[in-house]
Amino acid sequence: MKVHGTDKRTIWLAEDGWAVEIIDQTKLPHAYVEIRLENLEQAAVAIKDMWVRGAPLIGATAAYGVALAMHGSTSDQKLQEAYDRLYATRPTAVNLRWALDEMKAHLAPLPPAKRRDAAYARAAEIADEDVGICSAIGDHGAQIIRSIWEQKGKPKRLNVLTHCNAGWLATVDWGTAIAPIYKAHRAGVPVHVWVDETRPRNQGASLTAWELNQEGVPHTVIVDNAGGHLMQHGMVDLCIVGTDRTTRSGDVCNKIGTYLKALAAHDNGVPFYVALPSPTIDWKVADGIKEIPIEERSALEVTQMTGRTKGGDVVTVTITPDGSPAANPAFDVTPAKYVTGLITEKGVCAASEAGLKALFGR
Amino acid sequence: MKVHGTDKRTIWLAEDGWAVEIIDQTKLPHAYVEIRLENLEQAAVAIKDMWVRGAPLIGATAAYGVALAMHGSTSDQKLQEAYDRLYATRPTAVNLRWALDEMKAHLAPLPPAKRRDAAYARAAEIADEDVGICSAIGDHGAQIIRSIWEQKGKPKRLNVLTHCNAGWLATVDWGTAIAPIYKAHRAGVPVHVWVDETRPRNQGASLTAWELNQEGVPHTVIVDNAGGHLMQHGMVDLCIVGTDRTTRSGDVCNKIGTYLKALAAHDNGVPFYVALPSPTIDWKVADGIKEIPIEERSALEVTQMTGRTKGGDVVTVTITPDGSPAANPAFDVTPAKYVTGLITEKGVCAASEAGLKALFGR
Repeated sequence: MKVHGTDKRTIWLAEDGWAVEIIDQTKLPHAYVEIRLENLEQAAVAIKDMWVRGAPLIGATAAYGVALAMHGSTSDQKLQEAYDRLYATRPTAVNLRWALDEMKAHLAPLPPAKRRDAAYARAAEIADEDVGICSAIGDHGAQIIRSIWEQKGKPKRLNVLTHCNAGWLATVDWGTAIAPIYKAHRAGVPVHVWVDETRPRNQGASLTAWELNQEGVPHTVIVDNAGGHLMQHGMVDLCIVGTDRTTRSGDVCNKIGTYLKALAAHDNGVPFYVALPSPTIDWKVADGIKEIPIEERSALEVTQMTGRTKGGDVVTVTITPDGSPAANPAFDVTPAKYVTGLITEKGVCAASEAGLKALFGR
Repeated sequence: MKVHGTDKRTIWLAEDGWAVEIIDQTKLPHAYVEIRLENLEQAAVAIKDMWVRGAPLIGATAAYGVALAMHGSTSDQKLQEAYDRLYATRPTAVNLRWALDEMKAHLAPLPPAKRRDAAYARAAEIADEDVGICSAIGDHGAQIIRSIWEQKGKPKRLNVLTHCNAGWLATVDWGTAIAPIYKAHRAGVPVHVWVDETRPRNQGASLTAWELNQEGVPHTVIVDNAGGHLMQHGMVDLCIVGTDRTTRSGDVCNKIGTYLKALAAHDNGVPFYVALPSPTIDWKVADGIKEIPIEERSALEVTQMTGRTKGGDVVTVTITPDGSPAANPAFDVTPAKYVTGLITEKGVCAASEAGLKALFGR
């Protein structure tokens, strides 16, 4: 998608054909900084320190991390070292494990002399596959947006609410929840996006707002508290959010606060869609609330806030009183009954075991 | 309530018996600063610049503002000037108008020589009446808290969730929604409070956390997104919030985001109580969503955040990208069907026209 008018992905091969370049997402929205990765260790740090984030992008970065390792040495030992070093960066990320397993299975049987080129080729395929999945999600979701717009008599503005960042910055390109918005926007549907700030890490106010701004999609940042009020007053036509994990029954585990928006959508008859690449479906889990453990993150994410001063310095400030503790559950589970539909690369289905099985032929 | 171990109100007469002292609430939680008001203009600025906030405290400050004006001159002209100057500070505040009408009706018929002492006496009564109302709300609400605690078999920790600041800082003492918590805490019920941060102005993370901390009530700050998840997991035993305006049908207009918590409480069988002094009941309004206009406040409240640096400086930073607009509806309306009960100074009633009429004999 667009950055300062130029088409970009979140990860790409440098002009020299071997180094890898990324966007340092920790600097957004205050500064746009590209970073060049030249070896395994730099790729590992990029994942660990969250210069890149979002499951699909982590997977692609890990794949390129293996390629960078092979650029140095193609020995069995180096391949295992790359696997281990990258896996240790964020061991709970499902896509990271998947991408590393892919790379290892692909490269290990090859003679070392062929591993370097094969690694770059497979990493590029993994990145391209993600773009293909997200683009397909975008196509299916854009049809939903267009049909709601048409059903409502083609209003001058169609309001879509989203939570957190499930945009192209979380993937290689297009995004998941935002892909349908980009596709609808490009197809001439007058989409306007309500961007939930998404406390505590503010991925909405920082990343989603930034990418919509760069792409020229009309949008307005709101606090997470505001969505219910907007829905009560007919100012939200549909919601689309992403998900970190979807159970086989259609429960959706996503960024904390998603559940509250789903309740408000249900209470006001607003369609609530969840966009997901099918690898995030966890076929082993049925009851999301009972079975999915929720990560408790650092209280500092709640008690501190980072922004830029008038002078342009990026500063972190404390917003709570000394002596007041904070808790920080990072995700919540939205029960399937509040989800209007799941938008996947294979099409749209009901948020239910029957819906998912029909679509994925299980 | 307690500040650094000493009992305080939010407004009090100085030792000299004529000046008025307040807490500069704009400095909290980063600094505790008392301010001395010596004349009408200073009282007007204190209200206008929100050194004091909360409907009951605004009313009491306006009453003392008239007294300070009378300390200078007791002419008819000065009385009218005080009324007009103070009324202009926050013209939509119902309690402000009420307190000024009270003062004027009380003082205008008196001979000027008697107005000074009468003004101080009536202002003190208005402050004391507020304390009485809040204390009574606290008593009634504490009974609810205790009975839920006993019904649950007296657990070691009873979790109450609150939104925004309806504590003693918003009143002269005790508060409205927090008064029951203080009374229950003092009576030995092991209350723990989940404090919603309450974006965008962070009244929870700053003011509510601060006053609970000063009073020694166990509490934990959470982002506004977290409450639904906590309720799904049985970690909230009841909610108590305040209200700016309650319709005769029991709809509750309160800080933006209240509605989302009420939905989550309803979805999880968690009691959701609203505490209010009866003057905030608007007997003329039936349908809160249709009839109550919602104030749209400055986008800067959403795009900027104030906190203190490690060095102790209080700094305001921008958290959104340049070019991304923000919207800032300040309140929302929770339909009566999601409110378990209204806690008033006269007792507790159902959130319905029948409930309110039975309690208030209309």
